[in-house]
Amino acid sequence: MQKLFYFPGSCARASHIALREADASFELRLVDFATAEQRKNAYLKINPKGRVPALETERGIITETPAILAYIAQQYPHARLAPLDDAFAFAALQSFNNYLCATVHVAHAHIRRGERWADDSSAIAEMRRKAPEVMAGCIQLIEDLYFAGPWVMGEHYSIADPYLFTITQWLPVHGIDSSDYPKIHQHLVKMLERPAVQKAIEIESM
Amino acid sequence: MQKLFYFPGSCARASHIALREADASFELRLVDFATAEQRKNAYLKINPKGRVPALETERGIITETPAILAYIAQQYPHARLAPLDDAFAFAALQSFNNYLCATVHVAHAHIRRGERWADDSSAIAEMRRKAPEVMAGCIQLIEDLYFAGPWVMGEHYSIADPYLFTITQWLPVHGIDSSDYPKIHQHLVKMLERPAVQKAIEIESM
Repeated sequence: MQKLFYFPGSCARASHIALREADASFELRLVDFATAEQRKNAYLKINPKGRVPALETERGIITETPAILAYIAQQYPHARLAPLDDAFAFAALQSFNNYLCATVHVAHAHIRRGERWADDSSAIAEMRRKAPEVMAGCIQLIEDLYFAGPWVMGEHYSIADPYLFTITQWLPVHGIDSSDYPKIHQHLVKMLERPAVQKAIEIESM
Repeated sequence: MQKLFYFPGSCARASHIALREADASFELRLVDFATAEQRKNAYLKINPKGRVPALETERGIITETPAILAYIAQQYPHARLAPLDDAFAFAALQSFNNYLCATVHVAHAHIRRGERWADDSSAIAEMRRKAPEVMAGCIQLIEDLYFAGPWVMGEHYSIADPYLFTITQWLPVHGIDSSDYPKIHQHLVKMLERPAVQKAIEIESM
């Protein structure tokens, strides 16, 4: 059975929710960041990058959230999690998820993971100081231009929704109140009403 | 006709090469970074993120390199630039491209674009100092684990190849010699033999 390697509340939550939305059979495997398990040899054999998520399938392991999400959408077409027969609409969806991955998640990482890009403690502190401003700029751009509503891509729920939701849940780390962004806040509220989301949060909290 | 917005040698080169490999009809539109055209209103209407590439199609604009590359592969299936009928292989390809986008390109950006994540000049200098080390770590990981050979994904040339090639061309900025990474260096040499690559470089140099 496929296995999703995760840490609670991390970006792996997006893939976790998507698997539940697809009613997929899968096992969860906790990678304990508290003991730096993600950098130990056993896990580095799963994902040499030392990150979550990783999805172990019968054919091999997939990493990187946008890739896993598109794979889930393709593996479970009945769940209609992506416009698989419309290359332009699929590209628009992938563009949104890539923005979350390469810009928004990266902005977030600068508040807690500055050591990836600097050794000097004052430089790391400066990144931490600026991160909320960068993050707020990203969220404002999504609010103003990239959120079609009621779901990210419009009328249809898709793999963009659990990914945005996962990142919206990180905003308090930056001192950002989602209610300052009405569309994104309403999205958060709607996501919390979904059984797949409730179940994912419940399981990750155990 | 579709238009690719680019700056010479930027990550837009990956999409540029892919369009030529697909024998696609397209126009190139230079976005002049020297005059900060990417942050001016006219271009922000094309891509509000103020970045290249952007691909203008008859249905709208697509941004983010991995999304554009997958779109090109889907629009021109005869070019066989992605394993479109194999969800796992497609996910592996997307995983590679996402790693380039969200980790390797981000590592690169810290050498010249540190102001995205810090205001303080000494913090920006510290990011610049560390960037070559981070970049070298990424390139070593690709060399050791993620390069199947002779092309990135194995026997078949794909949208991963122009993307890796584009980033390999940035290594001298970090003082990194690609010949220290035999597989990646051989890939660079093979890419430079391809007519689509030669043409893209020639046009971008004009």
